[in-house]
Amino acid sequence: MIVLFTDFGADDIYVGQVKVALLEHFPAAVVIDLLHNAPNFRVEPSAHLLAALQEHFPPGSLFLAVVDPGVGTDRNAVALQADGKWYVGPDNGLLSVIAARAGKKRTWRIVWRPQRLSASFHGRDLFAPVAAWIARGNVPAHTVEEVSELQVRLGADDLAQVIYVDHYGNAVTGLRAAGVPRSATLVARDARLVHANVFADVPTGSGFWYENSSGLVELAANGASAAVLLGVKIGDAVTVERS
Amino acid sequence: MIVLFTDFGADDIYVGQVKVALLEHFPAAVVIDLLHNAPNFRVEPSAHLLAALQEHFPPGSLFLAVVDPGVGTDRNAVALQADGKWYVGPDNGLLSVIAARAGKKRTWRIVWRPQRLSASFHGRDLFAPVAAWIARGNVPAHTVEEVSELQVRLGADDLAQVIYVDHYGNAVTGLRAAGVPRSATLVARDARLVHANVFADVPTGSGFWYENSSGLVELAANGASAAVLLGVKIGDAVTVERS
Amino acid sequence: MIVLFTDFGADDIYVGQVKVALLEHFPAAVVIDLLHNAPNFRVEPSAHLLAALQEHFPPGSLFLAVVDPGVGTDRNAVALQADGKWYVGPDNGLLSVIAARAGKKRTWRIVWRPQRLSASFHGRDLFAPVAAWIARGNVPAHTVEEVSELQVRLGADDLAQVIYVDHYGNAVTGLRAAGVPRSATLVARDARLVHANVFADVPTGSGFWYENSSGLVELAANGASAAVLLGVKIGDAVTVERS
Repeated sequence: MIVLFTDFGADDIYVGQVKVALLEHFPAAVVIDLLHNAPNFRVEPSAHLLAALQEHFPPGSLFLAVVDPGVGTDRNAVALQADGKWYVGPDNGLLSVIAARAGKKRTWRIVWRPQRLSASFHGRDLFAPVAAWIARGNVPAHTVEEVSELQVRLGADDLAQVIYVDHYGNAVTGLRAAGVPRSATLVARDARLVHANVFADVPTGSGFWYENSSGLVELAANGASAAVLLGVKIGDAVTVERS
Repeated sequence: MIVLFTDFGADDIYVGQVKVALLEHFPAAVVIDLLHNAPNFRVEPSAHLLAALQEHFPPGSLFLAVVDPGVGTDRNAVALQADGKWYVGPDNGLLSVIAARAGKKRTWRIVWRPQRLSASFHGRDLFAPVAAWIARGNVPAHTVEEVSELQVRLGADDLAQVIYVDHYGNAVTGLRAAGVPRSATLVARDARLVHANVFADVPTGSGFWYENSSGLVELAANGASAAVLLGVKIGDAVTVERS
Repeated sequence: MIVLFTDFGADDIYVGQVKVALLEHFPAAVVIDLLHNAPNFRVEPSAHLLAALQEHFPPGSLFLAVVDPGVGTDRNAVALQADGKWYVGPDNGLLSVIAARAGKKRTWRIVWRPQRLSASFHGRDLFAPVAAWIARGNVPAHTVEEVSELQVRLGADDLAQVIYVDHYGNAVTGLRAAGVPRSATLVARDARLVHANVFADVPTGSGFWYENSSGLVELAANGASAAVLLGVKIGDAVTVERS
């Protein structure tokens, strides 16, 4: 299973081209769109979002992950194997939270370059073929070389920020809920939110925080947009007050 | 064929996770995205939209339908077989317009619960596995139990409201066009619209009503957004004046 | 491979219905969404965008292309074979840029009409079945008849306009980059843009033009929306000043 996580836009001209490139090299590929609206150009929140989302995917999954503001520069292209799953993307930090938290991992630099490599669309021209090769279990010789670790490393720690706002207006943070006691108060801008288990537990229009379905702390509101209610956006700091 | 009808957002992080859950239980599943932008949290218009759209799908189709503001409460989860098609979703009215209009139907309550059930994402954790089991034709014992009917029932009648606005700005109503004479005038807010067969039959920028491709009365405008032109939104009343 | 290029909206109710129609006639079809947000109702920019995008697809690809403001009128429905690829859609100019630039081509008028033909959704009712028949390699007799050429022809020349704005805000033009020297200045509204190879070559927030991954001249800005920065939209003229 090849899982796509990009900022290419779900309704734009790019994803279909990536899929054609995948199928060209691996016609039997099963391709899943996980997210194409990762925060444009923003590597750090995307890295934490991907690290949380990938946990629920089965062993053997391969993630083609591209949020790549430095496309066309000399940043490395890499493949990562971490705890039984695979990741292909730019070496700009995007895969580094996963790598830092992994028990067992190996890293390869992609040295292969296609005959026709556009300056701006390595997702199609470079990453997709390599992802297809790994997913089909047959990587041509001399296309990758093992390295000791990623060049850009963001570390394993949680990110105390809003990292994603979904279409309901729920504000996902980079805090893993397992480390936040249910008695804690979450502070974002002027708002102070207490915990609830589920949307229907609070009055309509009221804010709260809860452990979302990916295991992250999420700022939410019942029947309303928490992002609008609280005035928060990606990158805003979130503070945990332990009572 | 598993057909998805949800308010999970076409460009958000949820649909891919649902698909992975479907494929985990039924690797050969053919999955079609019908709509992921059903009106957020709004069960009644969604129920009428789904009832109209499903008519054009072939016998044997299974609809995984989730618009579920009460997720995590004690509302039931159900499977419905109606006139040769299948439906899986919450028992909150969403499937009830279909049930009320069906000739032959059976209803089951889903009693199975997965080991890991998130509070907010039963689409992935609960409904998707059951949908996959039904679609593959092999439902494990003791996971569902037949009941006499749905708990929440909206009835079979048409809904004289705007139930959906498409990306062109066409305003779909919950009125089935077969019951509305072509001589009728449709009234929505301050506008009075007469019938036309097709967009090109009216001047550019003019409004009209017609039978849309799903058999519903739709308020439209040639080369323009009817929703903007008329100032209508989901939930607005629509009146039929018979001449 | 059946490639979809439409203005049906990526998050709307139409694309899923088209796919069901394709699968009904060709269950083994591989379907790729290239773009469903082609400029609504606007045939000329869509024709130039499709002509550029299709170049990167493999021989044998079939494009189901529908931007069809005249649906329900007497415009023709056609199938085009051009340089080893197939195209099905309305004869309103949409396929004509490809035809005009092709070395080898054949054109057929679709004379078949389905039993149930909606007035507004020929993508589902008419074009999808024909596309499926061609893709599966078995077109029923008397459904198409060969004609000498398309009725509406926009010609082979480039279009010196903005033809598409992607979700990053990059403004794609209808100018093929192979014909524009790198020393040229691109003028759009009040802005004058010089060439750069890649986003990271210019300061953040600065505009430039480059050859995009489809071979077209694109107005872009590093880490910002060129469309907002320059105030350009689809249809705006672009001028090439050769130094």
